[in-house]
Amino acid sequence: MSQDFITGCPATSGDDFQLNTVSFIKGAARTFPEVEVVSRRLDGSLFRYNYAEAYRRIKQLANALVNQGVQPGDRVAVVEWNTHRYWELYQAISGIGAVLLQVNLRISEDDKVYVLTHSNASHLFVNDTLLPLIEPIAKRLTTVGKYYVITDKPFEEVRSTLTLSDSYEDMLAAEKPEFDWPMVDERSAFSACYTSGTTGKPKGVYYSHRCIYLHTNAFALATEMTNRDVLLQTVPMFHCHGWGLYFSACLVGAKLVFPGMYTTETLNVLVDLMMSEKVTVNQGAPAILIPMLHYLDSLEEKPKFENLRIISGATEPSLGMMKGFAKYGANIIHAYGATESTPLVTLNALKPSLDSLTDDEKWDLKKKQGLPFVGLDLIIADATTGKPIEAGSTATGEILVKGPWITASYFDDPRSESAFVNGYWRTGDAGCLDENGYLKITDRLKDIIKSGGEWISTIDLENTIMANPKVLEACVVGVHHPKYQERPLALVALKYGMSMTAGEVIDTLGNQFAKWQLRPEEVIFVDEIPKTSVGKFSKKDIRAKYKDQYDGGRESPAEKQTAETV
Amino acid sequence: MSQDFITGCPATSGDDFQLNTVSFIKGAARTFPEVEVVSRRLDGSLFRYNYAEAYRRIKQLANALVNQGVQPGDRVAVVEWNTHRYWELYQAISGIGAVLLQVNLRISEDDKVYVLTHSNASHLFVNDTLLPLIEPIAKRLTTVGKYYVITDKPFEEVRSTLTLSDSYEDMLAAEKPEFDWPMVDERSAFSACYTSGTTGKPKGVYYSHRCIYLHTNAFALATEMTNRDVLLQTVPMFHCHGWGLYFSACLVGAKLVFPGMYTTETLNVLVDLMMSEKVTVNQGAPAILIPMLHYLDSLEEKPKFENLRIISGATEPSLGMMKGFAKYGANIIHAYGATESTPLVTLNALKPSLDSLTDDEKWDLKKKQGLPFVGLDLIIADATTGKPIEAGSTATGEILVKGPWITASYFDDPRSESAFVNGYWRTGDAGCLDENGYLKITDRLKDIIKSGGEWISTIDLENTIMANPKVLEACVVGVHHPKYQERPLALVALKYGMSMTAGEVIDTLGNQFAKWQLRPEEVIFVDEIPKTSVGKFSKKDIRAKYKDQYDGGRESPAEKQTAETV
Repeated sequence: MSQDFITGCPATSGDDFQLNTVSFIKGAARTFPEVEVVSRRLDGSLFRYNYAEAYRRIKQLANALVNQGVQPGDRVAVVEWNTHRYWELYQAISGIGAVLLQVNLRISEDDKVYVLTHSNASHLFVNDTLLPLIEPIAKRLTTVGKYYVITDKPFEEVRSTLTLSDSYEDMLAAEKPEFDWPMVDERSAFSACYTSGTTGKPKGVYYSHRCIYLHTNAFALATEMTNRDVLLQTVPMFHCHGWGLYFSACLVGAKLVFPGMYTTETLNVLVDLMMSEKVTVNQGAPAILIPMLHYLDSLEEKPKFENLRIISGATEPSLGMMKGFAKYGANIIHAYGATESTPLVTLNALKPSLDSLTDDEKWDLKKKQGLPFVGLDLIIADATTGKPIEAGSTATGEILVKGPWITASYFDDPRSESAFVNGYWRTGDAGCLDENGYLKITDRLKDIIKSGGEWISTIDLENTIMANPKVLEACVVGVHHPKYQERPLALVALKYGMSMTAGEVIDTLGNQFAKWQLRPEEVIFVDEIPKTSVGKFSKKDIRAKYKDQYDGGRESPAEKQTAETV
Repeated sequence: MSQDFITGCPATSGDDFQLNTVSFIKGAARTFPEVEVVSRRLDGSLFRYNYAEAYRRIKQLANALVNQGVQPGDRVAVVEWNTHRYWELYQAISGIGAVLLQVNLRISEDDKVYVLTHSNASHLFVNDTLLPLIEPIAKRLTTVGKYYVITDKPFEEVRSTLTLSDSYEDMLAAEKPEFDWPMVDERSAFSACYTSGTTGKPKGVYYSHRCIYLHTNAFALATEMTNRDVLLQTVPMFHCHGWGLYFSACLVGAKLVFPGMYTTETLNVLVDLMMSEKVTVNQGAPAILIPMLHYLDSLEEKPKFENLRIISGATEPSLGMMKGFAKYGANIIHAYGATESTPLVTLNALKPSLDSLTDDEKWDLKKKQGLPFVGLDLIIADATTGKPIEAGSTATGEILVKGPWITASYFDDPRSESAFVNGYWRTGDAGCLDENGYLKITDRLKDIIKSGGEWISTIDLENTIMANPKVLEACVVGVHHPKYQERPLALVALKYGMSMTAGEVIDTLGNQFAKWQLRPEEVIFVDEIPKTSVGKFSKKDIRAKYKDQYDGGRESPAEKQTAETV
């Protein structure tokens, strides 16, 4: 959406110098040539090089891409783990003016086909261990002309039903390490990421060079990253480019660690690297951090981290998780954002003016989404009037954001119409700014339950239940109800070896909730909460599965609600 | 100078959201409303308010400017000390799309007239104590239509030969604190600063909003500024907008302190604020920092600073000065830049890879200009071929810089032709990048002396002489010589109560210099080194004064040079 602006006196500074993402590695190779980059191979061994050597390989890769016929504007898809090669691809592909298309490993085959064809991807890099994700759908990938394999094996030993043009390392080895980078229009796309949208097909966000450049600065500042830091790239690099903190690292000269492949079953991969490489900045979502904490708890020899901060996104971190990590010397810092916001919107840092809070107050504060970054325009819009609600008000509204790294539309997608308003991206989250300027999300708008005319916050219910030390996870959704329109349904997964009754779950709520807000009959115990490809509770799937739970003529478990709420 | 660029795939992020400088205070008022701003009045009392209150006043000021008829693109001149009002003016003037014209208090009347008329300034704000700088030239300021006075007095008590339209505080008091900021084209000028050029009339640099936005991010990162910091705005705000660190403070929520008026005779003003406000980031040039150190040394009760870092620009800091401040707990950090570079180009930070250096090696390293910021393109150009000289080479060349906050031309000035090459700004400094990526300036190109076919570095001579604890300042220039083309002339100012002979000055050089490089006859003792308006040695004036020193038939004092240098 275009926004009007006025023009004043022409300036002499900066001129039409374009913000290009390749300037990060170019500058880092000059100013921090010696800084180490560590990448864990699939066999567990560690590959080590430095920024200067990385830049040489990135220039070789750029030559290879050009020789393969990649043109400015072309979409080059990547199907890869969190490796130094993925990092190199981000820089070389965008450096020649093409677009790296991020392929989420966890979405369905149909969605993969949709993403690759909607984006018109013409080239595709795939790790040999991930060939089974692409081979079955190759016939439907009508736009992809060339496939390249990323592997540590000799090219001739790779077996695939795909016609592979070359292997990554062979392509690099054939090229010279000099490349004359073009200056790319900063509003051209650097990469594309399709959101794993809650409804319908994925929606495409195309990040400009400029957007990444500005976001890189902002995230480095927000995390107070310096050349003393060591970043572990835990967030999948196909998910909003893994948040792009590796660019912030280049900017300040921090050491980089890529863990390669890991799952929730092999979290020792991450923990071992955190210890051996002296990681100071890690990142993740509770979906990975909670199992990581359990893994730490299971170790005989307890690790002790130094100056480790872990940026935790996706959902509000629980007190139990934060306190659990604190035992090991790790500071969980909650940040809020999404694919559409590149992703940084807020980050939770303690202000000096709040130093005098009690410990309990500080823990409560840490659960909030945090401080909106100064460069962003963020408002809480009243649901009825659309007008901004002031900070410190108890009223909540929809969180709207605009700014130099916030998406203004979806790529070639009619659904843009309803997702943006007056240049703001509609987050779909309801919340408020407290009197100290901290953002607090009260709910996903669609997750607020309206039961018999009264609101119930599913997030408040979830977090309170999850505060019980026996509970591993809890998820509350609204389910249609014939009499009260909607009633909550709580899915609760207990920690291994624990047991609880539904009544004990209700007791956990204590006096924070009215009795009608959740009934024992509305609690269901499950082994695991269904999750989306990015590790959030998949409320869409849960709603679908339990949509008839309160229908079918059964007596409402919340019959007495109205009387009690009066 | 326009640079070609290629265009790829259009992006969906950021869109045409313009980077505007007013977003800093707007965001700070939302995210850090409580953060304190302290401003010292001329009577010595302290005015205190916070970001939220400042933003209200800035909106009042914007309304006042519009009501006075200030239009987008208009130049609004400011003649003021380092106060919160200057800071407010920067934000309100640029916020409505006009341009703040910085007026250097120290330049000649002719230059002031030149700057004000060349820029076509139409409005002028002046502090009542600075009226004597403007009143004598007012008749020649043909473009200025309206004058406003900045004062703590009632407006009617201000006496001036100027026709004053209003006073600053009365203007604000009449306005409401709501303002609907236009979005300003980010390539419009935010402010203008005319360099106190070494030759000819001042040259105009017009900084864009975009340039300031990006520089603000970079400087905050380079100085590792956080919301725990307290910035003292020591650098005059008319000199490259005082480096703009107050914007970096807004960005991260740091406290701001404005010292108002001070001189080298009243450095207690700065030191008292540093102590009482617990300043953690100060800034300055040796011209102010050396007298500040002498003042500290003179105090009976020695201060002890905590976490204080002082960014020192203009010229290389001497070891004596750095070690002197270290005694009081202050860390001098050398930074390099100029009006044309907004000003940050390099900043000297110790890399972790150099932790194992000895203390002496670390002190030597601290004298270097430091690490080029990653977002900038900086090369050392060979004087003959123009090609880049690699880092770690012993060869030196001219330092060329380009990037998003580097000036690409002078405003409406034919001298731009020779100052820029291939999009790079020619710094006029000769230097090299060492093997660790640190920039070292070896000389101003015009300050290298070519004596009988051999080069002499005036900066090396100066720094070595200044390392002598008896020496206050030393400046070496090249002076024409009938036989050797040029010979050095060293002006030496001694500390109070110290005495030295020319021979002892030469002894100070030890074995670092060949005997012919400086002779006792070429040493002149002076009370003070002449300085420019921004506190640098005024080599132009010194050269002019001593231009005939070695002419007039006198025997050259360096007659035996050639033989000795073979």
